[in-house]
Amino acid sequence: MQEKASNSPKRGEFARIDTYLRPLADGLPGALGLADDAGWLDIAADRRLVVTTDAMVEGVHYLPGEPPDRLAQKLLRVNLSDLAAMAAVPLAYVLTLALPAGWSDADMAALAQGLEADQRTYGLALLGGDSVSTAGPAVLSVTAFGTVAPARLLTRSGAAPGDRVCVSGTLGDGALGLVAARDGIAGLDAAAADALAQRYHRPTPRVELGQRLAGIASACADLSDGLVGDLGHICAASGVAARLAAARLPLSAPARAAIACDPALRARAFSGGDDYELVFTVPPERVTAATAVGRLSGVGVTEIGEIRPADGAGPAVIMAEPDGTLLTGLSGWQHV
Amino acid sequence: MQEKASNSPKRGEFARIDTYLRPLADGLPGALGLADDAGWLDIAADRRLVVTTDAMVEGVHYLPGEPPDRLAQKLLRVNLSDLAAMAAVPLAYVLTLALPAGWSDADMAALAQGLEADQRTYGLALLGGDSVSTAGPAVLSVTAFGTVAPARLLTRSGAAPGDRVCVSGTLGDGALGLVAARDGIAGLDAAAADALAQRYHRPTPRVELGQRLAGIASACADLSDGLVGDLGHICAASGVAARLAAARLPLSAPARAAIACDPALRARAFSGGDDYELVFTVPPERVTAATAVGRLSGVGVTEIGEIRPADGAGPAVIMAEPDGTLLTGLSGWQHV
Repeated sequence: MQEKASNSPKRGEFARIDTYLRPLADGLPGALGLADDAGWLDIAADRRLVVTTDAMVEGVHYLPGEPPDRLAQKLLRVNLSDLAAMAAVPLAYVLTLALPAGWSDADMAALAQGLEADQRTYGLALLGGDSVSTAGPAVLSVTAFGTVAPARLLTRSGAAPGDRVCVSGTLGDGALGLVAARDGIAGLDAAAADALAQRYHRPTPRVELGQRLAGIASACADLSDGLVGDLGHICAASGVAARLAAARLPLSAPARAAIACDPALRARAFSGGDDYELVFTVPPERVTAATAVGRLSGVGVTEIGEIRPADGAGPAVIMAEPDGTLLTGLSGWQHV
Repeated sequence: MQEKASNSPKRGEFARIDTYLRPLADGLPGALGLADDAGWLDIAADRRLVVTTDAMVEGVHYLPGEPPDRLAQKLLRVNLSDLAAMAAVPLAYVLTLALPAGWSDADMAALAQGLEADQRTYGLALLGGDSVSTAGPAVLSVTAFGTVAPARLLTRSGAAPGDRVCVSGTLGDGALGLVAARDGIAGLDAAAADALAQRYHRPTPRVELGQRLAGIASACADLSDGLVGDLGHICAASGVAARLAAARLPLSAPARAAIACDPALRARAFSGGDDYELVFTVPPERVTAATAVGRLSGVGVTEIGEIRPADGAGPAVIMAEPDGTLLTGLSGWQHV
């Protein structure tokens, strides 16, 4: 089990993809240079098909023994989160299973049950797939499809200096949930530990909010690598920097309780992945609208900082305490 | 290494998919009840997006030590073959890699080089993907996209009694190529063995022929499981049966040479998978047109039998010697 529990490539893999695979996407504008979590195909004048894919490997992205229904839902939701970040309406998905001999009919039934429930929740259906056997750990992947009008598609590249940085929901629950589920958090009451673990195991993709942010947000990403890493992707794609106020980061009551038990968990909450909330930028005059569509979508929207011009030196994303001290070591899961 | 070297599920997996996953495709007509190798999404009034996915696992679908460029090309081509069977024009693909630590930068470079060459040959580009690590054998999968006008889309379900059964190219080269590459064929000269192995390692998807068969073929499938199995899918989807003339099955010169060395290989050639030719049905008056578009596409088209009414008993696909004797044990890779 690696520390990394999110679904994006290792940092080393980013470099490899950039070197070897990115050139293969030349000539396909919707591939976005492989720099985004999703891409799009221009299928009709008035509709783009957003396509995203994520894989999960037993022992790398999930703990062995994970119930197949919950596992399948996480896999689907991780992909739905990528669709949400582009304001796409979920349509269908393809499922590829490489399963060891130990997968039983009961496991398959549970997997299907989990998917069926989420299909109803999020309004999509299974289009096809492949099922193969492997002598190694299970590898499950989903390629998910959504549609969006070209003018409504959100990308990472529209952030401008002066825009406010907002996030949906609360941050760090996924990262602390992994700690709670795997190692336990000494002194944390069982209900809080369970609430955090739930957020890790069964994240809520912000599908409705993403669609409502079209026309409001200037750039958007989902939080799979952690706030600093994913906002860093927005900054890189937009050619800007960001300054965040640590005190404004929204923490859930269970996360605050966990940090009270172990103050070192604060940095982990701020930098960990697996929240699958949305981080987005908004021109100042539209922050009220962003908060309003959050309410309509049943999720809080919190302004946590602002976009600044890139200065070409130093990290793109900095996070400051109220006294001006900069937090360090928050650059994503690899330091967790 | 299992005997099975094709990319379709194990027979047991067919039953599992039918039981557990097929209900998840309800309500999505383009999923075709998960009975086809590909499905489609209705994106525009005049265009369908054909979607197919295939995975390959080291030690199951390919031999360890397979060069990454050839491996990547086979993976892409297996998917292109599914697009061909639906008469779709290739557009883009998504690549998911679960790789063990042993994959080097040189392996990645070779993989990308193989893909780049095939992208040029077949006219598609990389849209996105995911790259993750695994402690087990490599699992590589591609989801490929093509487009087709709704009226041109070929499926497995249009075969009618009286239609002729045709195949492209020659049969059995893939299955005999696996034997030649893995075990050797005693007495077969090196050039013939090499030609067969090439056909196994680097099949030629009939992308152009598939498109030209739109409006000519009544049903179509690609040969990944073997002739009897894949034609059996057409029969099942169309509610018909088929009778094939063994003497008419087109064999390449290297395949004939291999069978001369070991007559038991004839049955293997007739039943093996991995040819990635097209098997299709054609009303009698259009057989000439089918042969002509084969010529235009640079591949032979051979009439090998005819479609009959389903009689509800016995196998859907039978193959007869000139004296009327029926060949048995040809029902696909599981008996190879």
